[in-house]
Amino acid sequence: MTKLCRYGLAGSEKPGLIDSAGTLRDLSSLWHDLTPERLSPQSLARLAEYDVSSLPVVEGSPRFGIPVSHVSKCVCIGLNYADHAEEAGLPIPQEPIVFLKAPSALCGAYDAIPIPPHASKMDWEVELGIVIGSTARHVTEADALKHVAGYCIINDVSERSFQMQSSQWDKGKGCDNFGPVGPFLVTADEIADPQNLRLWLDVNGVRRQDGSTATMIFSVREIIAYLSRYMTLLPGDIIATGTPPGVGMGHTPPVWLQEGDGMRLGIEGLGEQRQTLVRWHRDLPAR
Amino acid sequence: MTKLCRYGLAGSEKPGLIDSAGTLRDLSSLWHDLTPERLSPQSLARLAEYDVSSLPVVEGSPRFGIPVSHVSKCVCIGLNYADHAEEAGLPIPQEPIVFLKAPSALCGAYDAIPIPPHASKMDWEVELGIVIGSTARHVTEADALKHVAGYCIINDVSERSFQMQSSQWDKGKGCDNFGPVGPFLVTADEIADPQNLRLWLDVNGVRRQDGSTATMIFSVREIIAYLSRYMTLLPGDIIATGTPPGVGMGHTPPVWLQEGDGMRLGIEGLGEQRQTLVRWHRDLPAR
Repeated sequence: MTKLCRYGLAGSEKPGLIDSAGTLRDLSSLWHDLTPERLSPQSLARLAEYDVSSLPVVEGSPRFGIPVSHVSKCVCIGLNYADHAEEAGLPIPQEPIVFLKAPSALCGAYDAIPIPPHASKMDWEVELGIVIGSTARHVTEADALKHVAGYCIINDVSERSFQMQSSQWDKGKGCDNFGPVGPFLVTADEIADPQNLRLWLDVNGVRRQDGSTATMIFSVREIIAYLSRYMTLLPGDIIATGTPPGVGMGHTPPVWLQEGDGMRLGIEGLGEQRQTLVRWHRDLPAR
Repeated sequence: MTKLCRYGLAGSEKPGLIDSAGTLRDLSSLWHDLTPERLSPQSLARLAEYDVSSLPVVEGSPRFGIPVSHVSKCVCIGLNYADHAEEAGLPIPQEPIVFLKAPSALCGAYDAIPIPPHASKMDWEVELGIVIGSTARHVTEADALKHVAGYCIINDVSERSFQMQSSQWDKGKGCDNFGPVGPFLVTADEIADPQNLRLWLDVNGVRRQDGSTATMIFSVREIIAYLSRYMTLLPGDIIATGTPPGVGMGHTPPVWLQEGDGMRLGIEGLGEQRQTLVRWHRDLPAR
């Protein structure tokens, strides 16, 4: 149906919509913000009936924020591409590996990524993000996709020395701006088959990841059904579904991101992200 | 200064205050809700000057909800008591082990805990909870306590088979109602020394945990300073600081909670919690 976003400075984003011609339009007259409640099937159905050509065009090139406000949790699936598990030197999981990304790590698709002090192994992971539209608790695989509002890109930025310092990964996945989301979410009806999307990531113009969601071990519907047996998925929750091969850690020798390096990543139908690694500063990111 | 809470049915809690006589009073005339912003030092200072005896007394025995709304993240420290690490058969950590509890797992201090389908190893963990009052990013240990709004009890309920199914613990820590918080938060000025609090937990009237925060490996101020180097701590964030010995997993043979079992737990100065384990039902918990 449509591409939904939040645009403007961090902390004061407005809701927006990118129309079929690619023009950003302001949704403020309809919605105060793109809150989780706006993602319900009923809410999206009402929006679909609206004449979006009547919405004001947004001039200029504003920043894109996280495409949904008040994300209550970001659940991640580890090693969900068989060939990525192989490059990480880890066995193919028999069940999804579940961890969480701190919501404070999420940021806009083009925001700079500060390198935390003492970081030495900054890495990238392009991932298909699922945005939940309605509460999912113990749902079947057959019903799982009914709970999806849309899809988006997420870069599961990771600092591998932090990630591997203890048995638990969350610290190395949860630093500020380690989770660019967007630039927009594409409503589920626009994505014919979430298991047939090409996804790629370049570092400084060199293609590093180039895969397809067709090679996921656990599919989108399997992941939603599985997670919903353990924790209720709420509107606005984001699920990062794992990354294909080609992360920096998988190279011999490993390749780590440095200050000034640029990432560009995309998923078929979901747009592109770009981020630059910058020196850490107490005032970055602004919150 | 005071004990702050949110009382009422899940999803429609009102802000409340427990005065020095132990009487619950309604704060709605001052605050719409006990949001993270209300926990700032400035906000709490204004409240301290207010004549709380003018606030209406709340009649009856309402439910207590999570004492702060919109918790953006709940960060947990694993194995933070030397003797608990020993009972778990794990080495004493050289650095804090950091993981996250899904915010959807948090609930009120007396809410029932549904046993998830296929759960077999339900366990308990009484923990001192820190509630953040002001943004903390790269703070020193000397400054760390300035960012604490208050303290509360948190029961880090865990299902050990889910927790240990993969390398990552979050799944077994994140089920619905696996994180009772409260019943209230006690503002930091009321707690003379957070490293000298007795904490205990009974199961069906049998004392199972009986420790002191004096035996933490990493202190409250060390934890805050450490975490703030990796992820910005935001107002309303909750940190669960680890549990003393005596969890079910630590017994020989292990002791697991069953349907109908009752937990009662407390921390000196922070009140008490009680929860009953109940059969899982699709409509539990109400959200």
